[in-house]
Amino acid sequence: MNRQILLKSRPKGAPGLENFELVERPVPEPAEGQFLVRHRFMSLDPYMRGRMSDAKSYAKPVEVGEVMQAGTVGEVARSRHPNFREGDTVQLFGGWQDYALSNGAGARKIDPAAAPIQSALGILGMPGMTAYCGLLEIGQPKAGETVAVSAASGAVGSLVGQIAKLKGARAVGIAGGAKKVEHVKHKLGFDECVDYRAPDFAARLAAACPKGIDVYFENIGGAVQDAVWPLLNDFARVPLCGLISQYNDETLRPGPDFRSILRRRLTVRGFIVTDFQAKFGDFQRDVSAWYRDGRIKYQEDIVEGLANAPRAFIGLLKGENFGKLLVKLP
Amino acid sequence: MNRQILLKSRPKGAPGLENFELVERPVPEPAEGQFLVRHRFMSLDPYMRGRMSDAKSYAKPVEVGEVMQAGTVGEVARSRHPNFREGDTVQLFGGWQDYALSNGAGARKIDPAAAPIQSALGILGMPGMTAYCGLLEIGQPKAGETVAVSAASGAVGSLVGQIAKLKGARAVGIAGGAKKVEHVKHKLGFDECVDYRAPDFAARLAAACPKGIDVYFENIGGAVQDAVWPLLNDFARVPLCGLISQYNDETLRPGPDFRSILRRRLTVRGFIVTDFQAKFGDFQRDVSAWYRDGRIKYQEDIVEGLANAPRAFIGLLKGENFGKLLVKLP
Repeated sequence: MNRQILLKSRPKGAPGLENFELVERPVPEPAEGQFLVRHRFMSLDPYMRGRMSDAKSYAKPVEVGEVMQAGTVGEVARSRHPNFREGDTVQLFGGWQDYALSNGAGARKIDPAAAPIQSALGILGMPGMTAYCGLLEIGQPKAGETVAVSAASGAVGSLVGQIAKLKGARAVGIAGGAKKVEHVKHKLGFDECVDYRAPDFAARLAAACPKGIDVYFENIGGAVQDAVWPLLNDFARVPLCGLISQYNDETLRPGPDFRSILRRRLTVRGFIVTDFQAKFGDFQRDVSAWYRDGRIKYQEDIVEGLANAPRAFIGLLKGENFGKLLVKLP
Repeated sequence: MNRQILLKSRPKGAPGLENFELVERPVPEPAEGQFLVRHRFMSLDPYMRGRMSDAKSYAKPVEVGEVMQAGTVGEVARSRHPNFREGDTVQLFGGWQDYALSNGAGARKIDPAAAPIQSALGILGMPGMTAYCGLLEIGQPKAGETVAVSAASGAVGSLVGQIAKLKGARAVGIAGGAKKVEHVKHKLGFDECVDYRAPDFAARLAAACPKGIDVYFENIGGAVQDAVWPLLNDFARVPLCGLISQYNDETLRPGPDFRSILRRRLTVRGFIVTDFQAKFGDFQRDVSAWYRDGRIKYQEDIVEGLANAPRAFIGLLKGENFGKLLVKLP
């Protein structure tokens, strides 16, 4: 049987377990031109909150009753597709389920000997590409500049700071709680990391950025953004990647006064990873090499079993994960 | 005697006549390395509101008791400078006064035969350069795209729309009152112009932009920005040049929800003209040629005499001028 998790209802505010439904259905048979993948890992990412909502966005929402969307890796179990064979390891957008059919669109073969296969959902996949392109294409850090990143222990943020360091910049992380702060500073090698839960967070952040902030890689929004904003230097760049703290809001949260953007000549640019598809080769080349050479480190938070995915996803939106959140499937 | 207008006090909210003081002082003598300019025209521009305030900004404020700052053109009356001779026509940052001393910094000679000398304060000067660089460097309009610009009959906005047309884009102006709307549409040749004072302004603007807005050249902010924001297409660019409607605000005005910037992958970038100094040659070459060939039109609003400058400036912030606002000096 194929276990699937469906969107049962659209959340108002924070999602709850009642918004998801686990069902069992027969494992489907591939038609001509299709192949069947048995999933090994499934990725949980903050963007999925947007897909649960029917607010207009860059991607169509998941319809109520449909399988939740997710990036996945697994092995081809049966194939009627000319380019994918049984036993191939593939990464695809397979959804919250044990098995997925694919016609090959958006699927790519990965080499299971090159790196742990789940890295295709993390450092060598969408989150890694997001960090790489957002930082280098929009942030454009120069040696000696200060790069700040929120959600610094997460799949994207952890790489942003490490790439910033590789480019000669000073990396300042923002994370929630002593354990994450310790990890970001001492395991990932950021210059500083500040706990946004500290009552004197804004003052600590200012102290950690004595020369201000030249690039703010934004994953969080909300009160963290409020503390960062006064520290942005003239000509600072803000790659706007996510606003996790605002995804559950039912009302719009006003942004900063535009006079700050004008006077300090800031650049604020929203992006999603697929905007930079042309950079995928560069990303794979650079990040694979840094990973092989031990120049970047990587933390995974692995949850066992599909049934635990909703609870893990709900926790992700609250920052309860520690590193790239993955679901391991049997 | 040299008449000067000083900043008498800092305004709270909208400036009033009481914030300015007219004084008469002896015409100064140039020291070695200086020259004296007799002003013929003085420019009035919205940025001057910022200089009257001591809020942190990109330029130092005018101190209380100092001469108000302004771009000026005039003739060299006496010179002890090797590169400027008596009779030369020059453009400089001479301030609100009949005469100014200069050591040559920020001054440039202009050819009085090439164009009316006051164009060095308008279409061939700072406002023209602002339009040219903000639109082409940040807005980057492509043929077939829609470019909207607020304050469309003003010194900057009128050129933005005309350059957009020259680049094959559709130009939609936003201006206040029937006279300006008529001028923008029929004299300057914009495709559409919408009156922001109309009660159904937002609906009219939407109707004028059936394919949405790809570039919004922002001069105004406030309620005009609120109406533009929902019309911005994915990947739209917002050169943030001015926020005239907000300059007198004593409190910060929140900006748009950043989720709109994220989902539609907008680029919002603040700039001031001096950020693009390296483009000055390109600007002079292109805009001079377009002007000579009659491909761009230009409206001036000339006020007579220094004593009328404060009243004209106060009106400028309310949109009472019609075209590039200049003060003619005797």
